[in-house]
Amino acid sequence: MEQIPNWLMQRAHLTPQREALRFEGNSWTFQQLYDEALQLARKLTHCGVQQQTRVAILGYSTAQLVQIIYASMHLQLEMVMLNNRLSAEELQYQLDDSEATVVLVDERFASSVVHSSVLTFSDVEQADEADVHISPLWHHDATMTIMYTSGTTGYPKGVRQTVRNHEASALASALNLGLRHDDAWLCATPIFHISGFSTLTKSLIYGMTVDLYEKFDATAAAKSIASGRVTMISVVALTLGRLLNVMEEERLVAHSRFVACLAGGGPIPHAYLQRAQSLHMPVLQTYGMTETSSQTTTLQADEAFVKLGSAGKPLFFNAIRIDGATKPGEEGEICIQGPHVTPGYIGRFAERQTTTDGWLYSGDIGYIDEDGYLFVVDRRADLIISGGENIYPAQIESVLHSHPAVLEAGVCGLADVLWGQVPIAFVVVKEDVTVEELHEYCKQKLAKYKVPTAIYIVDALPRNGANKLLRRELPDLLS
Amino acid sequence: MEQIPNWLMQRAHLTPQREALRFEGNSWTFQQLYDEALQLARKLTHCGVQQQTRVAILGYSTAQLVQIIYASMHLQLEMVMLNNRLSAEELQYQLDDSEATVVLVDERFASSVVHSSVLTFSDVEQADEADVHISPLWHHDATMTIMYTSGTTGYPKGVRQTVRNHEASALASALNLGLRHDDAWLCATPIFHISGFSTLTKSLIYGMTVDLYEKFDATAAAKSIASGRVTMISVVALTLGRLLNVMEEERLVAHSRFVACLAGGGPIPHAYLQRAQSLHMPVLQTYGMTETSSQTTTLQADEAFVKLGSAGKPLFFNAIRIDGATKPGEEGEICIQGPHVTPGYIGRFAERQTTTDGWLYSGDIGYIDEDGYLFVVDRRADLIISGGENIYPAQIESVLHSHPAVLEAGVCGLADVLWGQVPIAFVVVKEDVTVEELHEYCKQKLAKYKVPTAIYIVDALPRNGANKLLRRELPDLLS
Repeated sequence: MEQIPNWLMQRAHLTPQREALRFEGNSWTFQQLYDEALQLARKLTHCGVQQQTRVAILGYSTAQLVQIIYASMHLQLEMVMLNNRLSAEELQYQLDDSEATVVLVDERFASSVVHSSVLTFSDVEQADEADVHISPLWHHDATMTIMYTSGTTGYPKGVRQTVRNHEASALASALNLGLRHDDAWLCATPIFHISGFSTLTKSLIYGMTVDLYEKFDATAAAKSIASGRVTMISVVALTLGRLLNVMEEERLVAHSRFVACLAGGGPIPHAYLQRAQSLHMPVLQTYGMTETSSQTTTLQADEAFVKLGSAGKPLFFNAIRIDGATKPGEEGEICIQGPHVTPGYIGRFAERQTTTDGWLYSGDIGYIDEDGYLFVVDRRADLIISGGENIYPAQIESVLHSHPAVLEAGVCGLADVLWGQVPIAFVVVKEDVTVEELHEYCKQKLAKYKVPTAIYIVDALPRNGANKLLRRELPDLLS
Repeated sequence: MEQIPNWLMQRAHLTPQREALRFEGNSWTFQQLYDEALQLARKLTHCGVQQQTRVAILGYSTAQLVQIIYASMHLQLEMVMLNNRLSAEELQYQLDDSEATVVLVDERFASSVVHSSVLTFSDVEQADEADVHISPLWHHDATMTIMYTSGTTGYPKGVRQTVRNHEASALASALNLGLRHDDAWLCATPIFHISGFSTLTKSLIYGMTVDLYEKFDATAAAKSIASGRVTMISVVALTLGRLLNVMEEERLVAHSRFVACLAGGGPIPHAYLQRAQSLHMPVLQTYGMTETSSQTTTLQADEAFVKLGSAGKPLFFNAIRIDGATKPGEEGEICIQGPHVTPGYIGRFAERQTTTDGWLYSGDIGYIDEDGYLFVVDRRADLIISGGENIYPAQIESVLHSHPAVLEAGVCGLADVLWGQVPIAFVVVKEDVTVEELHEYCKQKLAKYKVPTAIYIVDALPRNGANKLLRRELPDLLS
């Protein structure tokens, strides 16, 4: 099994004085981050956290969270990255399923978590330091992070992301985007998502500055892009739209140093791509997922304006194919291969295979054009993407089903100017119940962004001959 | 065992129109090189060359050689890269030891090789094409090249360099030097050496242009560096010296696009580094060897003028330590770890372990300073021990180099009844100077025991194919 140097240690050794992180007006070099993470690792050890065990982490995208993550890396912990928008019930499922031994939480979430061992970030910071041996070498196959993704089953699956997965992803992205010593990546996507987390792994492997924001700030982002303070930014359609608005209002254009906006989390409207072009701001659409530790395919910087709407070609180590397609342009399920593909799940799905004959079947529909460029046509059957967050109808339906008055439930996405899509629900009831009651019920059990914006009580749901719910026909019930 | 895409196929798929190779006024895109290599692979197959067998390759650094190498990659051949300066007897040893099934030779060497199956490059080009299945995936652990290295044993050892070794080397170098889409690397070091070959692997993995020369041309190199036509060049002390002379004579300075001269194959005189600095031309000293598929440590571009004389820090995936050293500055044998380290030898040394407890013992002497920078003091085999004092030829050579009349200098030990060994020197001069003057000059700059007991003015110094000084052959100049 291949071993590689502890990224934190090696990076601090190689470029100690280079800027590693910016957050709220403060700045850290790689040496400073290394020192602080090491101290936190000693404190975590004093708090009883054992090396190479599994912990869950819940926080906002702050410098403090980054330091907790880096301390956890030093201890080679398996980090279950909890989505801070989840409901208490959803969080509980992930804590139970992952069997995390400890939960590390931002103070602001201390009351949201029920677990036998909860440590707030402050608890850790105030602890004494214990002796600890930090390994200078890491195993490629070790699980670094676990991120939950819902899929079609209703039960979220904990996806393992190994050291090798993250490393392969970062290296392949560099081969596509190039690499400059003064690169800085504006990260305003949540760190608990692979999009945000992969910015941290790139930072350590490349020696690159992360310009971190707890929340996306369109004005700050626009100014940083125009001044050359950052060279890359990750966006989703929602944040790109806000960014474009500000740049146009303020009459800003991208600095010549600026490389690209990396746009993930679902399709980007063509109009946005065209507006970005006139601001000299390349937008590179990318296709990635939790199971692939970020990007599988991405447009190349010099093609941003040539293949508008495409998600590009595979990164250097990866391959894709369209299941069943016999010629360019034919649609089918997108299948993925490469060193960035997860080796598997944990918990209740631990036995499930992630690949068939070496290929990960994504569930997403797309085609490859005659030049080899991927176009993603439709996400995993019924996936709803709202402000960059994936929402699986099955999970919402499962919650509605659990209400005693509900006989049947169907959920689909509705186009929304602001969010791209929002979920709406249709239910058949067996007892009297008001829409308000069902709404309130969902709010208790689901992350806010998953709560249907509208719930309709109907007589029957559209089903096919095998009685399978036809979610795509649900919107017809509105007409 | 991890698999990765066939580099040629993937690179032609990703950046078909990008410039891949320049040679003698001609230029090839990645698609063109891919097509030509594929055709040559079909022809090789028609000539009876079986996939995944071992062949030997002997040629000059030409576009034709590159195409033969790429065709061999397509067939996943193990390529024994023969040094074109070897004597017939030395060649025969390598052919026998490697048991290569076929020898592929440039016409100009056809008469030099005795083997049951010799194919000239023309034979291959004129052959018919056979059907062949080219694998889209390669195994990380497959041996790609075998290069013979002399070491201290007298019998050259055939070093295996795997797909993974080459890949790890290229990726680690990119993390150090950065990566730009319009990079072009001037390669005038022989392709049969790892220095030249690694330029080809970088080209395929990065999508980078190789500006290839059969022989080093100081004027062409100087103009390319000054015009921005190339961004990188590999040099040894000798070629760097010639390059500096031309740039100074022609009053040229390096273009702002130019990244660095990568300087390997032994120490570079301090005077050269200082002269390069005044031409805005960073020279990054590197420490590498055949067993590590090129660089293990390299200076960073922004440190070229800060740590003059150092070979830098390890590249990101690598580690070094000084055997027996307990604190910074202590000299000892340099030990190396990383995914770029050979898994072993072939032929008569097939059973010999290359590493001990995961470390490759280089045989070279160096120290690591308090900032973590490696200084290579000397190759162990060249160490002169005189009256119990260690004498490193490189230091004496460096002093002689700094004399304005000296073009080249080589120092070795001569057996001495009284002292065990004494140092003697051989110099090539560019201006009139007497031996007495040089002797006096050394006395001013060196401890008495380090001053050469004899200095000989000669026409040329013995060098290998990579222009590396062969100190062990210096005494032959006396006979």
